Amino acid sequence: MEQYSSKLLQNAVDAFARLPGIGRKTALRLVLHLLKQSKEDVELFGDSIIKLRNEVIYCQKCHNISDRHLCHICSSPSRDISLVCVVENIRDVIAIENTGRFSGLYHVLGGIISPIDGIGPNDLNIESLVNRIKEDGVKELILALSTTMEGDTTNYYIFKKINYLDVKVTTIARGIAIGDELEYADEVTLGRSIINRTLYENSMSK
Amino acid sequence: MEQYSSKLLQNAVDAFARLPGIGRKTALRLVLHLLKQSKEDVELFGDSIIKLRNEVIYCQKCHNISDRHLCHICSSPSRDISLVCVVENIRDVIAIENTGRFSGLYHVLGGIISPIDGIGPNDLNIESLVNRIKEDGVKELILALSTTMEGDTTNYYIFKKINYLDVKVTTIARGIAIGDELEYADEVTLGRSIINRTLYENSMSK
Repeated sequence: MEQYSSKLLQNAVDAFARLPGIGRKTALRLVLHLLKQSKEDVELFGDSIIKLRNEVIYCQKCHNISDRHLCHICSSPSRDISLVCVVENIRDVIAIENTGRFSGLYHVLGGIISPIDGIGPNDLNIESLVNRIKEDGVKELILALSTTMEGDTTNYYIFKKINYLDVKVTTIARGIAIGDELEYADEVTLGRSIINRTLYENSMSK
Repeated sequence: MEQYSSKLLQNAVDAFARLPGIGRKTALRLVLHLLKQSKEDVELFGDSIIKLRNEVIYCQKCHNISDRHLCHICSSPSRDISLVCVVENIRDVIAIENTGRFSGLYHVLGGIISPIDGIGPNDLNIESLVNRIKEDGVKELILALSTTMEGDTTNYYIFKKINYLDVKVTTIARGIAIGDELEYADEVTLGRSIINRTLYENSMSK
């Protein structure tokens, strides 16, 4: 590990270098950039993250990050409360919100089942999902997890868990991404996209 | 700009996204990573940078970042005080220190002359360099700036400024980097490396 001329500098670079995807050279570059900013700006920077960590609230219903006990999505009167989309984390919520195509509510699992990482069903917000379906009149559950082995496992676990309840379970469409060329698509995706072909009129409708 | 479900989250992501080379997606990823850490660790992270900004000291002699008024290099009895290496910033000090091949002192200019960026000679630590040469018995000054137009301009400015003093001025060797293939070297570098060829014995000696 590199030695710097200042213990204070060393501490700051060490702190940045612990962030994922930030190497020591990048950490040093970021710290030296902050050193050039005004004291007030650096204070704001440091405080913003400390304040977030200390005061963060997770929505009681969907587990999204929120400033209140019920997030702005769950408390919005214009959202369809009978439609719930299950996602892994809040980055997925942001991604789906950015599409502007979903008007239901979310349920953030906080991860997916992954034995390798030691994450089992009990580490995820699945119990509260079952309760929501029972109590809130959810009519359709959209499973929007990654199309990986872990995602599929989690989908299946949730499906088994709520199978007995009167709720329709769907998954997001899988197929060829818009803009992709067929010859570069993987075989599994291409095969499924043929099996699950949709009516041409429907594909044009939106 | 994306809207997040929490003002606190928004502030933290905004703060990270203002760092150079950090986009909004990366900023969100870093913030969510910090959210998963303990409150103590996040406190340490935020404080380390605030503390550095508030308490940083620059070495009175070489302008390196330091915890004291004289940095550990300038105050070391084992360094050759008659040899001073002029660099642009403290990242260059770290880079040269890492080679383990330099036993003199440094002089950090704090930038290079760049009219486009509005940086003139008076914005740099050149006056103090001249004083050092006059007062500290400097025998050789090594100019180790970037081999760019701005670096060359700054080299020339310094050279003119201290030309009348009794000090030898050198620049770091320019040539083909070790491990590089000749056919990919640019013409100027290759041409200079032939003009400034060194004795084979000397190239092997270290």
